[in-house]
Amino acid sequence: MKKTEQDEVILLGHGSGGILTHQLIKTVFQDAFENAILDEMLDAALLNLPHGRIAFTTDSFVVDPVFFPGGDIGKLAICGTVNDLAVSGAKPLYISAAFIIEEGFPPSDLRRIVSSMRETALAAEVRVVTGDTKVVGRGSADKIFINTTGIGLVPEGRRLSPRRIQSGDVVIVSGSIGEHGLAILARREGLSFTTPVVSDSTALHRLAEAVLAAGGAGIKCMRDPTRGGLATTLNELAAQSGKGILVQEELLPIRREVAGGCEMLGIDPLYLANEGKLIVVAAPEAAPQVLEAMRSLPEGEAAVQIGRIIEDEPGLVLLETELGATRILTMLEGEPLPRIC
Amino acid sequence: MKKTEQDEVILLGHGSGGILTHQLIKTVFQDAFENAILDEMLDAALLNLPHGRIAFTTDSFVVDPVFFPGGDIGKLAICGTVNDLAVSGAKPLYISAAFIIEEGFPPSDLRRIVSSMRETALAAEVRVVTGDTKVVGRGSADKIFINTTGIGLVPEGRRLSPRRIQSGDVVIVSGSIGEHGLAILARREGLSFTTPVVSDSTALHRLAEAVLAAGGAGIKCMRDPTRGGLATTLNELAAQSGKGILVQEELLPIRREVAGGCEMLGIDPLYLANEGKLIVVAAPEAAPQVLEAMRSLPEGEAAVQIGRIIEDEPGLVLLETELGATRILTMLEGEPLPRIC
Repeated sequence: MKKTEQDEVILLGHGSGGILTHQLIKTVFQDAFENAILDEMLDAALLNLPHGRIAFTTDSFVVDPVFFPGGDIGKLAICGTVNDLAVSGAKPLYISAAFIIEEGFPPSDLRRIVSSMRETALAAEVRVVTGDTKVVGRGSADKIFINTTGIGLVPEGRRLSPRRIQSGDVVIVSGSIGEHGLAILARREGLSFTTPVVSDSTALHRLAEAVLAAGGAGIKCMRDPTRGGLATTLNELAAQSGKGILVQEELLPIRREVAGGCEMLGIDPLYLANEGKLIVVAAPEAAPQVLEAMRSLPEGEAAVQIGRIIEDEPGLVLLETELGATRILTMLEGEPLPRIC
Repeated sequence: MKKTEQDEVILLGHGSGGILTHQLIKTVFQDAFENAILDEMLDAALLNLPHGRIAFTTDSFVVDPVFFPGGDIGKLAICGTVNDLAVSGAKPLYISAAFIIEEGFPPSDLRRIVSSMRETALAAEVRVVTGDTKVVGRGSADKIFINTTGIGLVPEGRRLSPRRIQSGDVVIVSGSIGEHGLAILARREGLSFTTPVVSDSTALHRLAEAVLAAGGAGIKCMRDPTRGGLATTLNELAAQSGKGILVQEELLPIRREVAGGCEMLGIDPLYLANEGKLIVVAAPEAAPQVLEAMRSLPEGEAAVQIGRIIEDEPGLVLLETELGATRILTMLEGEPLPRIC
């Protein structure tokens, strides 16, 4: 954007559809997301897709604060949608980005967010091809909300579904849990830890492809444990598969600083959001090569088996404690941590 | 939703990703949008698309008030995205719906909005196949915002683009303008007119298909003049085509009550949003059959030619007044009417 007085804050006019909107699109969005499809500036992006099944997913991001250790709302908005496509077995291709901005938001912050989206999209090999900007009056939204919706291509023959889960299958997680949730909470509450906790916000497309390449048809299902944390995602898998899941507490990868921070705050890391972790359910015979493939990538280097699918207790998640006792791990109730993503 | 105490207002927990989110999805969204793809409840909807070009578009809706004469935010959210696909020459197929809800919002209002989305989607022959719900604290959003993102299929060989516009082409509008904008403004300001002004919010997929069937390759480009109104959309067409557009004021279809209301309020109907109007740029030889086809449908019965493309004044829109004088019609400046859609 050209530096003018109007440039100092986002105005209602930037969402009018008129001159200011066009200036904003040209100087902020088109510059950042430069690609020929977006540049057409039509009501819809026109995409030539190869024949095949399409994965289609949407997420709105309302995280507070907008900037946090390890990322920002823009990085989160790209990674979140890329990851929903990747865990569906799709190659992420195209993203739409829709912004709802509070009047008075600093354009410099918007540029920083958009620049972070650009970098994340480049790294994830997706293109932002269409968008929308609305501006609402002061107090009608909190700073900025971003919706991203994504399209990916699912290769022929690939079929991931919780319905394919069978007893004996193993449950793998790609790394340590709870970091995104705790990083947001700590920043919001003004807490600091001796070893800083940083959001794990990462695109998982490469890791998901590596898992599928290594495990083939042995890969039953993948998920990313975001809102509601690992415990909630495992409960979804248990409910959708109609199987039981037995998790061994001693195998759960939780960093010491996360465990400590959670204990101090009286929260359970199993319910904290992750934004760069993959859960894989795989046939037991595929597990060794899947774990090896995951560990060969930085985003999967701490991959570990945390449990297995059992015939008993259909629909439930059981946690076997280090002392050998077993308790039911329920889905998240209430809302310990709003606006985590 | 089952009637419980928790049901009386939307809680932060309804956006947690946990139990309350699942209840809300099951009892409000799945019931309304019933279809097998949504029911899979995966991270992404899996779609089998026929081979071809895809149109992809996104819009967030922040209209205030949420309910207004002639529609509501839900109807608008479906129509808006259906229309962006339709004017791109695509057959609208699939829609994602993402909700940002303010804590305390009445679930009865949410159900009313979702039910309106359901009806509108059925009428427009699109399916809502994936979604997202976030809840933010009181005062962090104003009631409810909805993002819809759509996928449509563009038939082989169809090519609509402002670059195809040539001098001599005619400009057609499907009916009277300014109604949505004035209806919102009147409701917001508590104004009433002798003849009530009602939003024109309508899905344009059928009208757009009729235009393309009647005009064939003679159809150069279509648009729906939403935010910024007819004047702004024509300016976009002029800029993108590099041609001039001459509009004859006496031909502009404006209802008497809209003209009167606008005069009273000191606003120009040419800059008021429309949510169910189509602008068509067509070769002159195609115009008669296109107009006839449009007029055969209720949503196009008042279709009329309002101007033509001229060689002079490239990039500008000229308005020839009833007295024969000509003035430049600029794009919307500033923001007379925020949160119009």
